[in-house]
Amino acid sequence: MSQPVIGVFDSGFGGLTVLKALLEVVPEADYLYFGDTARLPYGSKSVETVARYACEAAKFLEAQGAQMLVIACNTATALALHHIKQASSVPVIGVIEPGAQRAKLASRSDKAVVIGTEATVSSHAYRKALSALQVEAREKACPLLVPLVEEGWVDHAVTEEVTRIYLGEAFADGFGSADVLLLGCTHYPLLKPMLQRVVPGHVTLVDSAESTALAVQNALCSGEDARPCKSISQERSSLKFFVTDSAEKFKRLGALFLGQKIDNITHVDLKE
Amino acid sequence: MSQPVIGVFDSGFGGLTVLKALLEVVPEADYLYFGDTARLPYGSKSVETVARYACEAAKFLEAQGAQMLVIACNTATALALHHIKQASSVPVIGVIEPGAQRAKLASRSDKAVVIGTEATVSSHAYRKALSALQVEAREKACPLLVPLVEEGWVDHAVTEEVTRIYLGEAFADGFGSADVLLLGCTHYPLLKPMLQRVVPGHVTLVDSAESTALAVQNALCSGEDARPCKSISQERSSLKFFVTDSAEKFKRLGALFLGQKIDNITHVDLKE
Repeated sequence: MSQPVIGVFDSGFGGLTVLKALLEVVPEADYLYFGDTARLPYGSKSVETVARYACEAAKFLEAQGAQMLVIACNTATALALHHIKQASSVPVIGVIEPGAQRAKLASRSDKAVVIGTEATVSSHAYRKALSALQVEAREKACPLLVPLVEEGWVDHAVTEEVTRIYLGEAFADGFGSADVLLLGCTHYPLLKPMLQRVVPGHVTLVDSAESTALAVQNALCSGEDARPCKSISQERSSLKFFVTDSAEKFKRLGALFLGQKIDNITHVDLKE
Repeated sequence: MSQPVIGVFDSGFGGLTVLKALLEVVPEADYLYFGDTARLPYGSKSVETVARYACEAAKFLEAQGAQMLVIACNTATALALHHIKQASSVPVIGVIEPGAQRAKLASRSDKAVVIGTEATVSSHAYRKALSALQVEAREKACPLLVPLVEEGWVDHAVTEEVTRIYLGEAFADGFGSADVLLLGCTHYPLLKPMLQRVVPGHVTLVDSAESTALAVQNALCSGEDARPCKSISQERSSLKFFVTDSAEKFKRLGALFLGQKIDNITHVDLKE
């Protein structure tokens, strides 16, 4: 696949941390990013609602020319990956499996703590994926971390205190020997410097955004969708953004997540 | 209007604090509550999106028999009251005007601080309403308070610290003499005991949920929609709830806001 077109889907801004990781690992691809900002957050919604929204977005990206879909949203992956794969005719990669595999590689005790939104945790998608790799997981919902990141308090004393409370509960009662903290939400990479301070010294942070980018690279260079990697050109990738709510707000907040200026934003309406 | 049917609309759970106040002040009415839980929160969405969602909900409630609509959502009132009134054939009461009027009555310095979501604050609807009553207002967005309430941390040290930071900023620089704190979000009544501790001693809390309930009582007993109050029967009101996302979750979280058990919930789909 020379200069592949990759569609990246998220409920809003968080998936931009996955796009950021993809731009580092697969810089030669062209990217279409879809942020369903009019209907975010997915984290508090039911399976049926999330599946419906995610499939609409997947179809939209395919219609725009995406040759591979990255579901850069833990909630959508946890609740609807199966539905999205059924609704799509191109390869689909979610964020959970790659994160679980990296956690397995990073853990010696085969015990991991996973943090995420309420919906991701309730789905037990990480626990199932890790269990299949013989890693015992405790999943902990941290519903305040997304709003704290969106408030810009990524390195704030309040965020650190909230995180200490959440992680204190997560690593208690038999999980003191867990040696991996898996970031099961695409907002959390922005908290990494603070998290490094808060986690016990023996704990490795595994970031599902990075893990997913590496899985995409792998899928492009090998596996069933193999194309010889050397055929990939070194041209600079193009970026197009589609959002369902205000483009202006996406531009402003999105730059925090992507770590660079965002242009080329189109407002779309998925006919509600 | 004997045994009037009142439709109460909110993006989710917060409007239940308005319904709670209504049940105390106008106990003889029948209530239809619509919570647009599949699309919450409105607080971070654009005017166009909020107006569209709110008008759909208003039409739904009218079709169900509502003879009066209460827009129990500050964001929807701030961004879309005008649109909802145009789209409705029954009287429509929002939460902002009643809150502003109570603030005027409570203030001696004619200076008030208003706290709310980002969208409510950006709309400057409270500043305009208060300015028309010769009250100078500072509006302060407090985006973390809704998730803190939904986490159940209504009386938690972290919530108190976050509130101190927000209010410290709000009452600084020329607003030290403000003597009213207007709660411009329907989640905030749950924070009242904590807020009482945090605000300066000379500050009165004005709750737009209570203020709105009193405005509804007033509209039923006088004004253009006047019916003699004594004709109102003393039968116990009936409550029906309609939600766009999971009824189960609404039942669980909603009881916190309403202060009583919630039954009679119907899931509805506004055809998205």
